[in-house]
Amino acid sequence: MDTITPPVSLLKPMNIPEKIMMGPGPSNCSKRVLTALTNTSLSNFHAELFQVIDEVKDGIRYVFQTRNRTTMCISGSAHAAMEALLCNLLEEGERVLIAVNGIWAERAVEMATRYGADVRILEGPDDKPFPLADLKKAIEQHKPKCLFVTHGDSSSGLLQPLEGLGRVCHENDCLLLVDAVASLCGVPFYMDKWEIDGVYTGSQKVLGAPPGITPISISDKALATIRARKTKSKVFYWDLLLLGNYWGCYDEQKMYHHTVSSNLIFALREALAQIVEEGLDAQIQRRQECARALYRGLSEMGLEIFIKNPKHRLSTVTGIMIPEGVTWWKVSQYAMKNFSLEIQGGLGPTWEKAWRVGIMGECSTLQKVNYYLYAFRESLKATHPEYEFVELKHQNGYH
Amino acid sequence: MDTITPPVSLLKPMNIPEKIMMGPGPSNCSKRVLTALTNTSLSNFHAELFQVIDEVKDGIRYVFQTRNRTTMCISGSAHAAMEALLCNLLEEGERVLIAVNGIWAERAVEMATRYGADVRILEGPDDKPFPLADLKKAIEQHKPKCLFVTHGDSSSGLLQPLEGLGRVCHENDCLLLVDAVASLCGVPFYMDKWEIDGVYTGSQKVLGAPPGITPISISDKALATIRARKTKSKVFYWDLLLLGNYWGCYDEQKMYHHTVSSNLIFALREALAQIVEEGLDAQIQRRQECARALYRGLSEMGLEIFIKNPKHRLSTVTGIMIPEGVTWWKVSQYAMKNFSLEIQGGLGPTWEKAWRVGIMGECSTLQKVNYYLYAFRESLKATHPEYEFVELKHQNGYH
Repeated sequence: MDTITPPVSLLKPMNIPEKIMMGPGPSNCSKRVLTALTNTSLSNFHAELFQVIDEVKDGIRYVFQTRNRTTMCISGSAHAAMEALLCNLLEEGERVLIAVNGIWAERAVEMATRYGADVRILEGPDDKPFPLADLKKAIEQHKPKCLFVTHGDSSSGLLQPLEGLGRVCHENDCLLLVDAVASLCGVPFYMDKWEIDGVYTGSQKVLGAPPGITPISISDKALATIRARKTKSKVFYWDLLLLGNYWGCYDEQKMYHHTVSSNLIFALREALAQIVEEGLDAQIQRRQECARALYRGLSEMGLEIFIKNPKHRLSTVTGIMIPEGVTWWKVSQYAMKNFSLEIQGGLGPTWEKAWRVGIMGECSTLQKVNYYLYAFRESLKATHPEYEFVELKHQNGYH
Repeated sequence: MDTITPPVSLLKPMNIPEKIMMGPGPSNCSKRVLTALTNTSLSNFHAELFQVIDEVKDGIRYVFQTRNRTTMCISGSAHAAMEALLCNLLEEGERVLIAVNGIWAERAVEMATRYGADVRILEGPDDKPFPLADLKKAIEQHKPKCLFVTHGDSSSGLLQPLEGLGRVCHENDCLLLVDAVASLCGVPFYMDKWEIDGVYTGSQKVLGAPPGITPISISDKALATIRARKTKSKVFYWDLLLLGNYWGCYDEQKMYHHTVSSNLIFALREALAQIVEEGLDAQIQRRQECARALYRGLSEMGLEIFIKNPKHRLSTVTGIMIPEGVTWWKVSQYAMKNFSLEIQGGLGPTWEKAWRVGIMGECSTLQKVNYYLYAFRESLKATHPEYEFVELKHQNGYH
């Protein structure tokens, strides 16, 4: 048999252009975060890595607003963390209620089904959050072990209020699991105060770190549930008891589990440090100010927002309705070519209906929002000269 | 309830020292690889990422010496890839035979057991490979669906010959799954010629890329087995049919699966490009030359090697027996403090018995091996003035 010859494709230099990443993630990282990536890769036997891991845990507890000891990172994407929560907290045949109003909750349904859980679905519209009363009713009806909800859905830009939900869950002996991938650091989030039992967020979204590592935290109540499992969780790689030991969450000797990506941990540490330096409240305020400037700018161009009620909007992801007669990808293509700017299309509920703009990571400044609005206007004008820029009277709910 | 205040630990600057990583991984990356990490994180909608992904697939096919279309990366550590292979190729109740002579195969046992497989174990000594005849006998006895073997065990430095094993497996309707995490690019490996059905390797080992992303490839025979599954594989994140689509392995429209760590993919691309530029044979020869220089240098210091027979040694990982009266960690600590050099201790079979030295990534040069030998001698002398450096007569099997 022939041997496989060296591929010529790898003999050419790699050239990745600089881009302004204002889709719903990955966002741009700061120079400080990117530089942190280039530190020496350390193994799990080095004191410097232990220290950074402890600092990362402190930072994660701060952004989640929790004192949970079981706080760490999953070595994988946010999808992996979603799956880690579900496969640790559910055993075969156990019931989970999933509130579905976007594609992330659909993913949770797919995952829980594969693990053999008894999956119950509460379906809602894509553009409105579930009222607390509806969630309460469904919990009382299905009596699930866990409820899964998405706090901020990046496929639509919808914000699901969570206040009061943890209390309702606990009154019904149910754990509350939350996807905060797109929402964290863009809107207030209080894991302990809101009695949330499990949460994860995306590094490459609002936090402004590279993708591939995912903060996760579970309550002591969730930990006790895992410790009381009758069977081991299916996935060794995500076993939160072993991982929690490895991340030094418990007062016991650390044991080797897998090789973490120290480079990603260093970068995440710097992203968290930047949030700590600025302060969580200031970060959230800044993003909400950016979002309001975006809404105003879009109104001036006559562009509607996918989520109609401003109270239901996630400041970090906004769906921009595609006007009739406009070919969305022509605008996106033009903006990339002429402005190195990502104007991303829709996904799930917004597919072919809206573009999605992200106010995340380093792109959460008024300067970047203004650049986005300028580039959007120029791209729309150039690709659709017939489009009439008529200001919206209702101002997308903002005055 | 109190809010969680900003952690002071993150207000101090992070300071990761430069180290020479000559343990069994992570190894040092080249400047070119580390610089590649700092490119803009791209989402899965960008043509530049598609192109790099195609180049990475070309590179993986080259280092595995395969034409398999189902060639991609798992977004996680090598442990994740081990688990991905097992959970895709085994359904509940199906039989797997695992050849256990080191801690990686023990992990495979743990994982396959969690997925509900019928796990059969062939146990062997830690310091000798399984003879082909023994493996053949065990396959004929157990009639497993899959056989799992470790090509190079980084816990001992043992090399398991694989020639002829694929043929034996296929004659018995069994798939051959191989862990090549520590061996690839250090010793010859021919996936297609040796009829291997599933393999993965570690990015942070011999390849010289950062940890967190893991090359994997399966044969068309393995692909057909997955396509014929009666149940979906438990883990959505590792579903090789969905991932294969996402990585553009099949002639079908790509669908979103998860957000890959583009930064790690860029770095892996550059590590693979460096291998292609030098050539696989030259890389392997260079590492074997380094290993011989190491064996000679160790003999001169009177230090024995854990694996006695030179033919059974992995060029990329060498266990150095701890002489009587020597406290291993004192030597390691001294070397780190005075030479910024990692002299790592043992794991599994070598725990408290041997140090482990890696000839991987950027550390695979005679200059680095000589530095290692020099620093080792100085550290041993300084911490154990009573140690007598008496050259070994048998020269660790080398002359």
